[in-house]
This record gives sequence, C-alpha cells and structure tokens, in this order.
Amino acid sequence: MADWQVISGGVTAPKGYKAAGITAGLKPSGAPDLALIYSEVEAIAAGIFTTSQVRAACVDYCRDRLQAKPSARAILVNAGQANAATGAAGVADAEECAQLLAKELDIDPGAVLLASTGVIGQRIKMEPMRSGIPQVVAALSDEGGASAEKSILTTDLVVKSIALETTIGDRPVRIGGMSKGSGMIHPNMATMLAFVTCDAAVSPHLWQEMLSRAGDRSFNQITVDGDTSTNDSLFALANGQSRTPAITQWGPEAEKLEAMLTEVCTHLAKAIARDGEGATCLIEVAVSGAPDEAAARAVAKTIAGSALTKSAIFGRDPNWGRIAGAAGRAGVKFDQNNLRIQLGDIVLMENGQPLAFDRMAAHNYLKSAAEGEYLKTDTVAIGVSIGDGPGSAKAWGCDLSYDYVKINAEYTT
Amino acid sequence: MADWQVISGGVTAPKGYKAAGITAGLKPSGAPDLALIYSEVEAIAAGIFTTSQVRAACVDYCRDRLQAKPSARAILVNAGQANAATGAAGVADAEECAQLLAKELDIDPGAVLLASTGVIGQRIKMEPMRSGIPQVVAALSDEGGASAEKSILTTDLVVKSIALETTIGDRPVRIGGMSKGSGMIHPNMATMLAFVTCDAAVSPHLWQEMLSRAGDRSFNQITVDGDTSTNDSLFALANGQSRTPAITQWGPEAEKLEAMLTEVCTHLAKAIARDGEGATCLIEVAVSGAPDEAAARAVAKTIAGSALTKSAIFGRDPNWGRIAGAAGRAGVKFDQNNLRIQLGDIVLMENGQPLAFDRMAAHNYLKSAAEGEYLKTDTVAIGVSIGDGPGSAKAWGCDLSYDYVKINAEYTT
Repeated sequence: MADWQVISGGVTAPKGYKAAGITAGLKPSGAPDLALIYSEVEAIAAGIFTTSQVRAACVDYCRDRLQAKPSARAILVNAGQANAATGAAGVADAEECAQLLAKELDIDPGAVLLASTGVIGQRIKMEPMRSGIPQVVAALSDEGGASAEKSILTTDLVVKSIALETTIGDRPVRIGGMSKGSGMIHPNMATMLAFVTCDAAVSPHLWQEMLSRAGDRSFNQITVDGDTSTNDSLFALANGQSRTPAITQWGPEAEKLEAMLTEVCTHLAKAIARDGEGATCLIEVAVSGAPDEAAARAVAKTIAGSALTKSAIFGRDPNWGRIAGAAGRAGVKFDQNNLRIQLGDIVLMENGQPLAFDRMAAHNYLKSAAEGEYLKTDTVAIGVSIGDGPGSAKAWGCDLSYDYVKINAEYTT
Repeated sequence: MADWQVISGGVTAPKGYKAAGITAGLKPSGAPDLALIYSEVEAIAAGIFTTSQVRAACVDYCRDRLQAKPSARAILVNAGQANAATGAAGVADAEECAQLLAKELDIDPGAVLLASTGVIGQRIKMEPMRSGIPQVVAALSDEGGASAEKSILTTDLVVKSIALETTIGDRPVRIGGMSKGSGMIHPNMATMLAFVTCDAAVSPHLWQEMLSRAGDRSFNQITVDGDTSTNDSLFALANGQSRTPAITQWGPEAEKLEAMLTEVCTHLAKAIARDGEGATCLIEVAVSGAPDEAAARAVAKTIAGSALTKSAIFGRDPNWGRIAGAAGRAGVKFDQNNLRIQLGDIVLMENGQPLAFDRMAAHNYLKSAAEGEYLKTDTVAIGVSIGDGPGSAKAWGCDLSYDYVKINAEYTT
C-alpha cells in the first residue's frame, strides 16, 4: 500500500535544502541549542500553531508572516528559552533574530520563520544568539539534518526524524522531517515542534490544506497528558527543486503527496508520544464504525488520553471497563450495544457486553507488546468499534507510570 | 454571608425522611452495601445523570421515570455491582428491584428510584438483593442517614455527608445530603453518586432548575482525572414537610433555597475531589474576570484537571507556567497580557508576565496549605484572573501522586 521508501538525511533529504545545528550557548547544559533549516530557493511555506491563548512571541510572529506571504527561505530554531510570557521585549527579540539571520543569509527578513522551545517566561539569551547566528549559517550543509535534529531537543530522550521518497511524473520527490517534544508536557519545556521539508512543487493553498489535514491526523491525535504548549508549531516547506510537475489541484498526484506528508507527520508524532515522560510503551488506538472521521478521531483521542486506560496499560491490565468508559465520554453519540473492544487480536467486549476472554492471554499480549523494541515494536494496539458508520481514525499516547509523576513533581521551577 | 447553619443527621435531617443502610451480602468484602432513602410523602424529585454513551441500567431507568413523573418516594442504592454493560438482563434486574421495594413499602413502583455502584459488567447479585430489600425497609429510621451514607461507599476512604438549615417564612427548612466517589475514577468502581433531601415545598420545574445549576457549580466542577463513570447520578428530593410556603417562582426565597442547595452540593463534591485516589490535598481554583460564568468554569476546571498542575502541587512547586499553560488551552478567548495568577495570597504572574516572587514563600505556602487538617484546611488555593469581565467560578481537584498510579496500575480486573 505504501507507495514510498525510507531514505536517509532527515530535513536535508529533499533537494535544495541545507541545515545545521550548533551549540550557541543558550542552554545552561552546554548541549546543542541552535538549528537552522535553509532552502536554496524561496519555498512555499505552511504552518500550524498552538491554539493556546498564552503564546510565545515567535508563534504570533510566524502566523503573521505566513498570512502576509506563504513562503519562506529559512527557519531558525532555538532551544533553552521559550520566549513566551515575555511581553513586548520578547517580540523585539524575535524580530531582531529574524533581522540578523536575514542579513547573514542575504535574504529578505520576511522570508525567515522562527521557533523557540525552553523555559517559559525567559527571553532568548541575545548575546549568544547574536554570535551564534553567523556560526549556524557558516555550518549549513547538505547533510546538516542530523545535527539540526539534535539541536532542537530539550528534555527529549531521542532524536526524531524521517525521510521518505516517492515519484511524481516518474521523477523522485522527497519529504523529510524532524520533531521534538517529550509528549508536549515537560514542565516549562512543553513545546512540540516539527519541521517538514519537501522538494515537490505545489501551490500554497493546496500545501496548507494538505498540512492541516496531515496535522489533524497525526500531531493533533497524540496526547500524553492533555497539556498543550505556548510554543507548539509545525512548519512545512515545499521548494519545487525536485523539478516535478507543479501540483496545483486535487488529483492522484496531490493525493500521493499528501499521503506521504501524512506518513512523515504520523511518524514524527508517534515518536513524540512514545517519548512521553516516564512512558514504557506507545499506545495506538484505532477506532472504526463512527459516523465520520472527526467522530472517530475524538473517540480515539479520548481513549488514548484517559489516565485510567494509561495506568492500566502500565500495569499490563486488560481492563476493558476503562476503555469503554473513555469511549462513552468522548462526546460522540453511539449505541452502547454496538460497542466492541479489542486488545491486539483479543476481543474483550462485543455488542456492549463483556466477553469471557482469556485474561492471562490478554495480560501476556500487553506485556509482550509493551516490552517490544524501543520506538519500533513497543506498541499496544487498542481496537474499538462503535457502530457500522464509515468513520475511522487513530490516536496515539503512552502509558502513565510512576516516573511521570516523579519527573513532574520533583522538577523545580 | 451564609444564611444557614450546619446541623446533624445527613439525609435524614430534613423532616419526613427515613433512611437505612445494611449489609445485604452484595459485596464480597462483607461491608455494608445496600442503602434506602424514604420519604413519608410523595416528594418532588430531580436528577442529573452521566452524559456517557455507556450507561448503567439504573441510569436509563431513572431518567425515564423522572421524565414520566418528577416525584418519588424512595431511592434504593446498591454497592458492589454497577449493573452497567449488562444488557437486557440488567434492565430486568433493575425493574425487579423497583417492584420488590415498592411491594415491601406498599407504594407505586413508579415512585422508586435506583442507583448502583461497583464493578462494571457485573449484574446485581439478585439473591442477596431479594432478601436484603425487606431487611433494609425494616431498618428504616429517622436517624438512618448515618448508616445509609456508609452503605453506598466502594473505594472511598471516608463517608461524605452534610446537613444545613435555614428559614423560609420564619420556619426552618433543611437540606441534607450524602455522596460517594473516590474522584469518579476508581477502576470499574468509578461511580459518583449523590443524594440530597429537602423538606421545603417547591415546584418540580424550579427544583430541577435549581439542581441543574447547583450541579453545574459543584459536581460538574470537580475533576480527578477526567474519567467519567457509567453510573454517575445526583438525585434531589423535596417533600414539603417543613410546612413552609410553597416556592413556585423566582424570588428571594427561591434564591435562598438554591444557595443552600448549592452549598450542600459543593460540600459533597469537594469531599469527593479530596478523596481522589492517592491525593494529599484538595486544590481549589478560583477564576475571575471572565466574559461569563461558563467561561470562568471552563478555565477553572481545565486548571484543576491539568496533570502538570496537579503534579506540581504534589511536588509543592509554585510552577506558574503550568497554570498559565492550562488556562491558555481551556477554549476560552482572553488577552494573555491580562493574565494574573496567584497561589494563596502570593502573586506569581501579572499582566501576562512572571513576577519576581519569593519562591521559598510560595513553596512554604503550598507545603502548609496542602498539609492542613484532612478534609478541613488541606486546601491549596489557586487564583486566576483573565481579564475584567464579570464571570467568576470555582473548580476543585486534587494533586497527582505516585499513589494514584500505583492504585490504578496495580489493580487487576
């Protein structure tokens, strides 16, 4: 079914992109903290941002920029300070970053996008930033994806990136991506950031539409604890350097590109959910039989976010009652006599009533599924059907462990 | 301000009510498990039920009963089996309970209301129920509130009851109540139940309206982990035995009665939040300056339910960023430059920006507030203002501790 192959290179896998990541001295830890993605030509740019009423300066800055002109040449990402809850001074800092980078790259300041992650309430450390910008520009390279993806992390345990390649009109087209986020939740470093590069030629309106839909099916379907950040941002660039025919309307080629974009976003999103604080496994909830896709998404996400379900999975406990309870409160109408719940291939409930399933087999499924290979097979699959409607969707979360509480209770602001 | 006094007696404090609680043998533990509230005359009855799509037989039964006729003589409550996800057999069991009780009390079966709490997917054990019904009727007494409130518990650590008295037309009027629920969340015993008795004379429509509003401001404003039960129910009876003038329209007397009803519901709701699994304190979030009360309620409840905020309170960490983050994602529009956050009397953030507050003083406030007297002063107060609108509201939750995870992960279905 998948009409693409995995390639290496992350955000620099598509043609015409360079990237870099350096240690500018923004983080007290001395870890890499400044990343840059650069497109050799003006790229179509789309973005999705946090819906929070409390937002970082860079979020408002980028939303305005993209509304004025849906294209960009560069994205500058700093880790260490979130530049959120920093008022007018924070806005001025963001503008200065864009100006300095534009000057260094000799491009229009309006072609610069910005993202920040780190401590809320702290302004960007501008001294190291000012000296870091020329350094990160000097470090740009065709293979820079690997260093860029390290430099955007905060509390993440692992880097998160992918690149896929397909063909459009018999020529190769590539999408690369990187993300960070330890489940959207780390205290004051909560941000989920994701960056996607693509070398296809696609019209701005179509590209934003594709990204919005892909985001709804991926990043908007992951949940660690329901907390959302001030800085959450997803950017996607498309620079046309594949020299493939421009995609300007719906059709098989647009569908193919959107499917690959959705796959990239889903991979990056699942990697964030799996990296949730204290998590021991990924939980994938697949809902079917809903009236429509939005209803299926709501039910799937409610189950994936249920603290009771998450605790049960941590305990490797096949507790169908918690899954049924979460499904019932998702705000989607269904007849409870149609409810069907399964863990892996084991059906626990059918027609709204519990089955006499093999409890030990279900426990063993949870144990073996949760303890699979990290970020590969360590996935617990929950399947839920709520009727015979055409709507289906997936959501992802992680289990709730002692370590989640430990990490979040013992952190001191 | 409060125009009432606390009296003893729980649900049997108002005139014309009897109650009882016995051990019928429904629970494997041998703890009390069958309660009855009885009004000597037909009482106006109002109810609020779970909005879940997965509901117990008794919930649908009572909703239908109250729609047909908003009055009742008796409420029978069993603990041990939830009678949810039990299909047609569960409905038949509920109907049989009502028939048997009506016969024993010599009242119309349509005057019986039912509530169940316990394990989802289990039918009521009908043999002990059949022999228990005559026993619980025989045990009815004017002082039965104390035994009834013990017999509705499942995983609760403490009983939860209150009674208040005020005057209407110079004659005393009383409202009593009892509730159960360990934060709506215990695995398969998740139910929140609450029962309110009142001896005022009030019209059915007004009584339901008062209860709906009181429920929105109390039970609907508590959160332990966002999980909602299949059996959640709140019942309120008003039997007119105070012989006070009938309240049939809005006015000072209706307002007085509603204020006291709201106070009873708030007390019972807070007691449930405080009894949340693993909790070490109650969290009270007061939001002001919102466009309206509903907006204030949404912001308050989002903060009270934020896993990050709850973990921070458990860690006694004055982490304003988590409170700001939760406020921002509550779905209520506000200007982040108007955000103000305080813990107790200590202001942490003003005009959307962090203040240089005394971190140790804030930590000490959290420590002393959280470690107050159980169910009395062990309350952490979070104050949030989001603007200069007239809307204000409160919500209650509890902190998130290691024990929450332990209780829910180690429970085995």
